[in-house]
Formats: sequence, C-alpha cells, structure tokens
Amino acid sequence: MLNEKYMKRAIFLAKKALGYTSPNPLVGAVIVKNNKIIGEGYHHKAGEPHAERMALADCKESPKDATIYVTLEPCCHQGRTPPCTDAIIEAGIQHVVIGSPDPNPLVKGKGVEILRKSGITVTEHFLKKECDAVNDVFFHFISTKMPYVALKYAMTADGKIATTTGASRWISNEASRLHAHSLRHQYSSILVGIETILQDDPLLNCRIENATQPRRIICDSRLRIPLESQICKTAKEYPTIIAYANDPFEKEAALEALGLTLWRLPDENERVSLPSLMKKLGENGVDSVLVEGGGTIHFGFLEQNLAQKLYIYFAPKIFGGKDAKTPVGGMGVLEPKDAFILKLLHSQTLDGDILLEYEIETSSAK
Amino acid sequence: MLNEKYMKRAIFLAKKALGYTSPNPLVGAVIVKNNKIIGEGYHHKAGEPHAERMALADCKESPKDATIYVTLEPCCHQGRTPPCTDAIIEAGIQHVVIGSPDPNPLVKGKGVEILRKSGITVTEHFLKKECDAVNDVFFHFISTKMPYVALKYAMTADGKIATTTGASRWISNEASRLHAHSLRHQYSSILVGIETILQDDPLLNCRIENATQPRRIICDSRLRIPLESQICKTAKEYPTIIAYANDPFEKEAALEALGLTLWRLPDENERVSLPSLMKKLGENGVDSVLVEGGGTIHFGFLEQNLAQKLYIYFAPKIFGGKDAKTPVGGMGVLEPKDAFILKLLHSQTLDGDILLEYEIETSSAK
Repeated sequence: MLNEKYMKRAIFLAKKALGYTSPNPLVGAVIVKNNKIIGEGYHHKAGEPHAERMALADCKESPKDATIYVTLEPCCHQGRTPPCTDAIIEAGIQHVVIGSPDPNPLVKGKGVEILRKSGITVTEHFLKKECDAVNDVFFHFISTKMPYVALKYAMTADGKIATTTGASRWISNEASRLHAHSLRHQYSSILVGIETILQDDPLLNCRIENATQPRRIICDSRLRIPLESQICKTAKEYPTIIAYANDPFEKEAALEALGLTLWRLPDENERVSLPSLMKKLGENGVDSVLVEGGGTIHFGFLEQNLAQKLYIYFAPKIFGGKDAKTPVGGMGVLEPKDAFILKLLHSQTLDGDILLEYEIETSSAK
Repeated sequence: MLNEKYMKRAIFLAKKALGYTSPNPLVGAVIVKNNKIIGEGYHHKAGEPHAERMALADCKESPKDATIYVTLEPCCHQGRTPPCTDAIIEAGIQHVVIGSPDPNPLVKGKGVEILRKSGITVTEHFLKKECDAVNDVFFHFISTKMPYVALKYAMTADGKIATTTGASRWISNEASRLHAHSLRHQYSSILVGIETILQDDPLLNCRIENATQPRRIICDSRLRIPLESQICKTAKEYPTIIAYANDPFEKEAALEALGLTLWRLPDENERVSLPSLMKKLGENGVDSVLVEGGGTIHFGFLEQNLAQKLYIYFAPKIFGGKDAKTPVGGMGVLEPKDAFILKLLHSQTLDGDILLEYEIETSSAK
C-alpha cells in the first residue's frame, strides 16, 4: 500500500536544500521496506549526488524489493552525475513512486520508461500538486528560459510603503524582516530600481549565516547610481549587475573598476526593457528574481506579464498621507475589471504582521 | 460546578440581536439546573424584556435553586422595564454567574450587591473578556458619551481604493459586500465625506431584509451635496444628517425641504470639526458610527483619536497607479515610529477576499 506520509517526508527533505540547488530542482527521496523507512536523502547542491543516490547510500538494510518515493521523476541521462535510473535498477528497487514528471526534455517520461522496461512498477503523479509546488522556479525556468519572478513588498494596513517624507524603516517587524532574508537566500537574484537605491541606499545582501548570496541587479537606465552607494562599495564582495539603457556615460569605466557588471540593454519609454533583461538573465543561468521595488518597477513587471508570485508583508499600522508611496505605481489600470488577479497560496502571521503569498495569474491578453 | 459552555451559549444568544438593541447592550442568559439548560433568552430590542426575564419565562421547570449565566450584570433600577434583580430573587435562583460588570452608573456593582444581600451566590467576571467583546459599542458609549467609531474600507493588494480614473466598482467580491451590509445593520449610523458622494453617488442603506437602517451622516462643510444625489432623493425614507461648517447658503432650505437634517458645526481647517460632530451624535443617542471613507475623513478620525475599530476587505487584485487613491490620506505621519498602531482581533476569508478586523490603539499622545 502506498502511503502519502512517505511522499510528504520526501517533500520535507527536498525543501531542506531551498536556496542551494540552483539551477537544479529540489528533490527528496525516501526508501521504504516493510512499512519502515530504511533510507532517505535529498539533493543538496548542483554537482552533488541526486536525491535517489543519497537515499540509496543512506540505506540501513538492502533496498532490494523496496519502494522508493521520489518527488521528481528520476533522471536517465548522464549529467554531472550518472543517471539515477541506473542506480535504482541496480539496487533492485521494486516500486518507484513519483510526484512530478521532469519537464527537462532530456528526461520527460524517459526515466519512467526505462524503469518500466526493466520490470519495475512505477506510480506517477503521486501528490503531484504538492511536489510541483516545491519546484515552481525550476519548472518555469526550464520551460520558458526566463527567470521565475516574485515581487515582494512590506506595506502598511493603508497600503503605504513609506511615509509622506519617504521614510520606510521600518514598516514590517523583525520577524518579517528575517523572513524576507530567507527569501533572498531562496531566490538567486534580487532586483530593485534605481529610485530604491537613491532613497534607501540598501546593501541588498542576505544576512543569514551560510546563506547563498543572491546576485544584485539594479535597473538604472541612465546610470545614476552613486559611486559611493553601498551597492558600489560592496560590488567585489557581492556580484552585481547594473542594467542600463541610454547612451554610454563616462561613468561606465568607474563602475566597472568597482567590480560591477554593466549590461547595456534596449530601452522602452526611457526605461530598461524588462523582457530583454529577463531574457539575458535567463541566458546567464539566473533562474529566479526577487523584485524588491519600488512601485514603478513592480508595475512594469505586472504590465509586461513577467511576474509569477507576490509576497506581501502586511503590517498592523497606518501611515496615512495622500502623497505617500504605494507598492505598485506606474500608470495603473483604468477599470477595476482590468485589475491583475491574484490567488492566495499561503498566509501566516509573523509576530503580528501577516505574510500573504500569492500566485499572479498571468494572461496572454496583458 | 460552573461550566464555560453555558456562558458561551449565553454569548451566542446575546449576539442574535446584533444591530437591534441600540442604545441598550446585547445580553444573553441561560438557566441551568442539574446540568441541564431549563430556560434561555436574550434581549431582543430596546423597550422589550431583558435577557434574564426572557430566560425565566422560557423555563420548562421551576427555576428554584437553579444557576443563571448572564453575560452582563443584571440591572437593579427601574427603566422601561422593572429591575431584573427582583425577578431573579423572586424566582428563587441560587447562583448568578456574571460575565461583564455593568458600567452604567445606575447599576455598576449594585446589582451584584442586591443579589448577595438576598442570599444568592454571585460569581463575577466569568469569561469576562469574551462577554466584554460583545458590548464594545455599549461600553464605549456609556463611558465617553461619544459614539463608538469603526473605519471600513475595501482595498486592493497594492493599497488602492480606486483606479487612477477613480473607478471603484468593484474592489471586493460579492461575499465581502454582503458582509459589509451586515456591518451597516450592526452600526447605528454610516458616515462618509462629501467626496465619496460626488464620486460614487451611493445610497448608503442596508440591503439586508428586516435590517435596522443606519442613519446616514454626510460631512459636507460647504454644502456641496447635489440635490439630485441618491442621498437627497431618499432622505424621507432614510434619516440623513448633513454636517456642515461654513456660512449658511441658500441651499439649506432646499435640503431641509427634501427631508435632510442640517447640523451646522464649528469648522477646523475648513472641515467640519469631527469632535464636535461626534459629541453632537452622542447627545442625540447615536451610539456607533461606521465610517466608509474616503481617505481624508479616515485620516481625520485617526488623527483626532476618534476611531476604535477598523475593518479591511482585502481583495486579491492589483490596480497599480501612482496617483490612484489609498484608504487613508490627509497629511499622514512623518516618521514610521509615529504610525497609528493596530491590533488584529479577527480575520476570515470571504470567498477569496480577506476580512481583517483590527482594534485601533488609541493614545492620549496623538
């Protein structure tokens, strides 16, 4: 009898490597014999063994005739590590239970086929939805070659991201800010507009021990970034890309000398073309982007149908102010029926703040 | 042995009359004998019998030696109905279990005293917090002589109450809008600023069958309300007060002829003085106000420390627009540390929308 609890355990294990596996997927595996887990493992990091091999290596007794629960279809191609299908067949596993099919064209159903041909029972799509959710970044990136994009903002209960004077430290509480750093660890890059740099002079690193530091990406069409900003001063420590659009300035050389990478991209209405930037990030292996504002940038991503997810840290306070900034600016939509539609995925309280996690419904019409 | 379930039942009964008892409190009572409810009741409407008498009348067997659970201290004064303490003593009740003390100076501990003097056991403050919460309006009104004020708005996930063009129909979904009508039933008045009338031309009634229709209050310092607005056209059907502040206009007579009540009040920075308006509403027996915007009015209530509660209908959609209106406008606070602080009381989902119910922390400093 199959048991969901084993796949849930495999999902739990997969998530342990959140933020470490890019550009690989998160995968967990649990090997069960006589209703007992005899081995388990997960993929820790690109270049290191896959979950199936970790679980086999972990076995306390022979995996012969055992069942393996694995969150993603086992690979069948030689990558940096040998195919997992081989390892499963060699180990004498009797039944393979799979959550998500692998969208990678090099695998896609072939893993399942190879296993079945060797006489192994295969169950597909077991807790598929839950398994899919673990790898939204991977699935998006492999199918579109563009990074998975999440917008993130902290907002007061009256929809402000700053007071009328522009002050924004702090809107969310300490628990929320710590959580926001876990997102920076999880996403492979952070993107902000130049206004955020000029207003707040942020460092944009991840302040969690042993975290993966995200690449920093600044949209700065006219290269206004101050050489003495925190971003410029720390560019040798944290890889940073400045995306700009206008004619070259003398500033280019100075910025490159500080260690920043400069990407000149087409402009759209005097701003960096976001589709061009996303495409170039994808080509450079950046599989995910956490967009941390401001409002103009957020609207740009929504308008061009380039964002998949939204995180809101909702703080129990009110700033007021008819001129105080809000999290999504730009032109906006004209009619309520044209609004961008969200779907709540998850909510939790963080010491009084509320974290709301939404999927952004994308449509080809927009 | 006392049992919380009986007091919870009394609270449940009390709430059945939500919206009908003003200016009286909501009260429920349950009579228990040999671990069995033998009678129960609640106060239905001002002028009708109190909960204790309703419960006694409902008894299937003699209430002699029984225990009565009552959410609020029994009254001991002759009002429109005779004192409940008399009825309890006459019935031979042995034990009275009380939730909230009655803040009414005519009762306040005297009810308890009379019961004890007659040999009845009295337990006070039983589930007091839960019982108090039922009567926040009553307690506030009786102790301050000012109405209890709740702010209410529907907002997108990016903090907008309208698109850049001013369109706002609809932000929240049908379930939310139905819920909002239950608030209109529950509060004894609705207040909006003139801008809301000019922008949306709302009717501001309660569209629930058999509901109590709230008084409509419009803050309109310069009497700009159009004679052909829905408010003016329906003033004979729904009592309406226009609060204004400037020199008399010729329009006064026309508005009075339509059935509107005109209150001329002191002005503050060319707006109607909200403290004066609240005081006058209190003097006229209006115990609660639901403020439905716009942003300037909301900020006015917060700034002057006049609001106790906030309801937000949070819709899973994004309008964007740097000039789109937000729910709290005005000058706003200058520094994040000066924000108005909220405390979450309750949240629920309404078919995808989220209703957030907050207490507004008032401080004498503001």
